[in-house]
Amino acid sequence: MIAEILATGDEIRSGALVDSNSAYIAEKIEELGIKITRHNCVGDDENELTTILLELAERADIIVVTGGLGPTLDDLGREAAARAAGVSLQLDAKVLEKIESFFFSRQKTMPENNTKQALFPQGATILENPIGTAPGFSVKIGRGTFFFLPGVPAEMRKMLNQQVIPRIRLNLKEVYYYKTATISTFGLGESALEDKLCDFPKLFPSIKLGFRASFPEVQIKLYQKNSDEKALIKKQEEASSWIKEKLGNKIVSLTGQPMATVVGDLLIEQKATLAVAESCTGGLIADWLTDRPGSSDFFLLSAVTYANEAKEKVLGVEHTTLEKFGAVHEETAKAMAAGVQKLNGATYAIATTGIAGPAGGSPEKPVGTVYLGLAGPSGCKSQHFFSAFGKRRLNKKIFAIQALNLLRLELLSEKN
Amino acid sequence: MIAEILATGDEIRSGALVDSNSAYIAEKIEELGIKITRHNCVGDDENELTTILLELAERADIIVVTGGLGPTLDDLGREAAARAAGVSLQLDAKVLEKIESFFFSRQKTMPENNTKQALFPQGATILENPIGTAPGFSVKIGRGTFFFLPGVPAEMRKMLNQQVIPRIRLNLKEVYYYKTATISTFGLGESALEDKLCDFPKLFPSIKLGFRASFPEVQIKLYQKNSDEKALIKKQEEASSWIKEKLGNKIVSLTGQPMATVVGDLLIEQKATLAVAESCTGGLIADWLTDRPGSSDFFLLSAVTYANEAKEKVLGVEHTTLEKFGAVHEETAKAMAAGVQKLNGATYAIATTGIAGPAGGSPEKPVGTVYLGLAGPSGCKSQHFFSAFGKRRLNKKIFAIQALNLLRLELLSEKN
Repeated sequence: MIAEILATGDEIRSGALVDSNSAYIAEKIEELGIKITRHNCVGDDENELTTILLELAERADIIVVTGGLGPTLDDLGREAAARAAGVSLQLDAKVLEKIESFFFSRQKTMPENNTKQALFPQGATILENPIGTAPGFSVKIGRGTFFFLPGVPAEMRKMLNQQVIPRIRLNLKEVYYYKTATISTFGLGESALEDKLCDFPKLFPSIKLGFRASFPEVQIKLYQKNSDEKALIKKQEEASSWIKEKLGNKIVSLTGQPMATVVGDLLIEQKATLAVAESCTGGLIADWLTDRPGSSDFFLLSAVTYANEAKEKVLGVEHTTLEKFGAVHEETAKAMAAGVQKLNGATYAIATTGIAGPAGGSPEKPVGTVYLGLAGPSGCKSQHFFSAFGKRRLNKKIFAIQALNLLRLELLSEKN
Repeated sequence: MIAEILATGDEIRSGALVDSNSAYIAEKIEELGIKITRHNCVGDDENELTTILLELAERADIIVVTGGLGPTLDDLGREAAARAAGVSLQLDAKVLEKIESFFFSRQKTMPENNTKQALFPQGATILENPIGTAPGFSVKIGRGTFFFLPGVPAEMRKMLNQQVIPRIRLNLKEVYYYKTATISTFGLGESALEDKLCDFPKLFPSIKLGFRASFPEVQIKLYQKNSDEKALIKKQEEASSWIKEKLGNKIVSLTGQPMATVVGDLLIEQKATLAVAESCTGGLIADWLTDRPGSSDFFLLSAVTYANEAKEKVLGVEHTTLEKFGAVHEETAKAMAAGVQKLNGATYAIATTGIAGPAGGSPEKPVGTVYLGLAGPSGCKSQHFFSAFGKRRLNKKIFAIQALNLLRLELLSEKN
């Protein structure tokens, strides 16, 4: 059994929009053990659409089509599906009623155009849309079972998972259980991880291993299918433990959480609070930490002190420290961390001071140089790091994650 | 003349990676006035690859292929191209020498595998790769001229612009000049912009108008081609002025710069400095501002004061203000702005305090409520805003851009 994907719409065809739907669909279908052989994309042109539907009807068993179900003139998915299937379009009274009440509940009158969204090729199965007005549908053409879904990613994803995947699974000869686990890591590149885990395929032949850069972290993906659900869960746990033993504290999270979330969890677990002093990271550490709902439980403040005067005035860094060592120095990093820790009596504090570039570098302190400061219950320390990436935004990210990792390792050692 | 795009590789086919190359290529080719009819994607399978190359050779005049040029066993672009063209692969001694010296200059020995990257289908034109080891090539099969490029976006983009686009242009019957202009706007949705500019197509029939959401900003795109370069530039200027008149200060930048960059430019132009006090935006404003190289010319600090104690201690907000009005209030926003302005004597200060969600809302102050504070040479003011987006990350972005926009409008009125 093989599957293909068809994205439709002029925005994707002309490059105005990157198609992220097809990757999502491909992953979900391949998790079922069905191979995706091709992705395709055509624009809002009824002839082009009908032609490719007929090609797909000869080539694949399952086809997921996205887009072309909106209410406007250039939404031609229904028309092309009916033409390719050699049937006419029929109005579904129940669906029309639902669309009308959708508008009614928002105190609006349904625009005439939307009537179109209640039309379906004769014999099609209607696929409910729990979010928007446009239902999808499934229709058989030639060898292929086609699933037509809206192009809006949020609607498409819900409908794929609720309406399409269960239908495909019903027709599979064997019923499998699927599990995709994500482990987030930091500190080793993809090939170094692959090296360290080189025995994995031998030890766990039933689990497919994947690596995905989620810069600056690297995620390990474990894909498993099994007809026995209990065996699947047990195998998963064994594999996670084995990887944990191999990688130690390079593992940020066995459940795929990113660095900032994990640091937040550890702080909450230890009933500790955090203050941050940022120079070269420019607020990025605070931004990451506060993306976590409930971060006010541990996060007190970040002082983004770009100017030296702000380092003195807000953080209490001594003028002589800045004069003697300069802003980019381990002593300054330590003084920044100690200063911000004191402000509101935080349990921990981290600080960054460095050169993100493109300007500001020197032979002694080139662009990419950063000093990290850490203040905790057991005192102050500093760490030097050099990033060879050379780009400002990347440097900010590398500096920020290094600072969070320094704190993470401290919190872990506190825990043990 | 029509064109198609083929992305190759199991990572894209299986959905492990979203294909952003095809959208980039589509835009560049359509700018030449050539229509892209389809995008396609197949995996690392020599038979599948050869089959689709032969289909494309019948359907399109120009085909850009990405991926499959690496040194490993599953990189099969060269083999499939040779098979589809019915020729053999030949080693190019000059290219081999270049690859060897690439490794030599990095004090490494070339792995045997990389020899493969000097193989090309007989009769192919070699396309230089200015960044990586894998050159691309161009070959004629059937009706189609094929351009094979590496899949790494940075290499692909450089080679497309330097090697492919000029070659395609040479074969166009008429020589055109192309210009894509981007205007960034804030405060109106796509359909409201379209409404305001409804006369544009009549007045400027030679310019294609497009809209692209670059949340929370909306970009207006102007696509123009003309055989007369001077006329093109003149028409472009006329169109920009006309749009500027229609949209006024909803225009953030006529050259497509984002809000934070424009605010930085205005501050530098007015030799002014900025201090920020952030609560609900959690450092995002500082992060955006400091992504701009040279932001230390105007940016003094941001105090990301999440805890009330930090608002008191760092910003000097009165305890009674917080007690009487609460943290989310216009008086608190003003006090935060005034406090951070005073710290290092900044010309301007902006402040945010609100509820990003998902928790923390109340009937009087629901999630999405924010108060913005602005302190400047002419005093303090506050603005209330409500975001109906409901998601934490989106709310942070909306709050941050509203604060920057408040400052932008103040700086513009100062200018006039």
